[in-house]
Amino acid sequence: MRTIGTLLFPGFELLDVFGPLEMLGALRDDFSLQMVAEVAGPVESRQGPKAVADAALADAKPYDILLIPGGRGTRREVDNAALIDGIRRHAQASRIVATVCTGAALLARTGLLDGRKATSNKASFGWVMEQGPNVVWQRRARWVVDGKYYTSSGVSAGMDMALALIASLSGPDKARSVADYAEYRWASDPDDDPFAALYDSPPAADAG
Amino acid sequence: MRTIGTLLFPGFELLDVFGPLEMLGALRDDFSLQMVAEVAGPVESRQGPKAVADAALADAKPYDILLIPGGRGTRREVDNAALIDGIRRHAQASRIVATVCTGAALLARTGLLDGRKATSNKASFGWVMEQGPNVVWQRRARWVVDGKYYTSSGVSAGMDMALALIASLSGPDKARSVADYAEYRWASDPDDDPFAALYDSPPAADAG
Repeated sequence: MRTIGTLLFPGFELLDVFGPLEMLGALRDDFSLQMVAEVAGPVESRQGPKAVADAALADAKPYDILLIPGGRGTRREVDNAALIDGIRRHAQASRIVATVCTGAALLARTGLLDGRKATSNKASFGWVMEQGPNVVWQRRARWVVDGKYYTSSGVSAGMDMALALIASLSGPDKARSVADYAEYRWASDPDDDPFAALYDSPPAADAG
Repeated sequence: MRTIGTLLFPGFELLDVFGPLEMLGALRDDFSLQMVAEVAGPVESRQGPKAVADAALADAKPYDILLIPGGRGTRREVDNAALIDGIRRHAQASRIVATVCTGAALLARTGLLDGRKATSNKASFGWVMEQGPNVVWQRRARWVVDGKYYTSSGVSAGMDMALALIASLSGPDKARSVADYAEYRWASDPDDDPFAALYDSPPAADAG
């Protein structure tokens, strides 16, 4: 059984985590979903509800796929050296690393995105770019794939990216059937990003 | 501060819960999000990850809005008399009751939907109809509003319904800004349901 590890931290954005996991959960015959945080136990989201981390990052074995969400908590966590070190170690060991929204800022802080193409959410794009000045940031993209790194735009874009990942792992027919099961209109073109223009300026003060 | 109470039960579908809460969480200046289950504590989703119930249904004060998700666990919970009684008591006291996917089956079992229009997910529609033979089921609908009852189609439809609820509470501009923040393409027409035809026959054996 392969594993998908999803990072939690205080102030994670709910849909950044559970949108992709709704889709990736359809691969449960092949992958188990595990939640990981700096400390195991309940972790409070930006919106309030808590999810449970099954393991501590320092203790967890490498995952086949590592999923890193965004959320307001990233503003604090980019300066959490222990967390960034743990992300770096896990990301190096994982076969695939996927970020949603400002989760790209956490991954950028490891240096692993340097010289690679990546994207993030549009309302916080300026701040995210500052976290990785050597990343080749793509402002207009629903998601970007560069090697083993999948990075998606804001919140809902994580679901579209997850479906693209499923298509890559299990074929486009499987991805389509997962989207249909969830009655989800899959935006399957990574370049179709109507939200890039919306946030050209100014960024929202409260963005995730 | 008003409250939105979301029901958890073993085998709840992740996106049924966290899709709507991503959207409704944007009302956090006015509403706090609380999670409730038969027993307080961690509750395992259909996909594996656990969310934390803050309160037990029997102890919880009435919520302003009650959200009832679906998921495979509904197959067992429709026969859980204590849970159905708790849902009935809370639904009667709530100002608004919203269901996602097969959550409509749980609400139908209370009898409160009798004579009302409602919908549910399309892959399990036959089973859901059996749970409420006196409900006026709408096979083709993204979501349906009848009085204080909002019922949505499968999984992702809960996000569209939640945005409609926000539009009703706080105006369409607020709903649009919430969707834009989440970079979500809001399907704002409740009658636009491309998934109804997809599942006309036969239902998927493994549907939520």
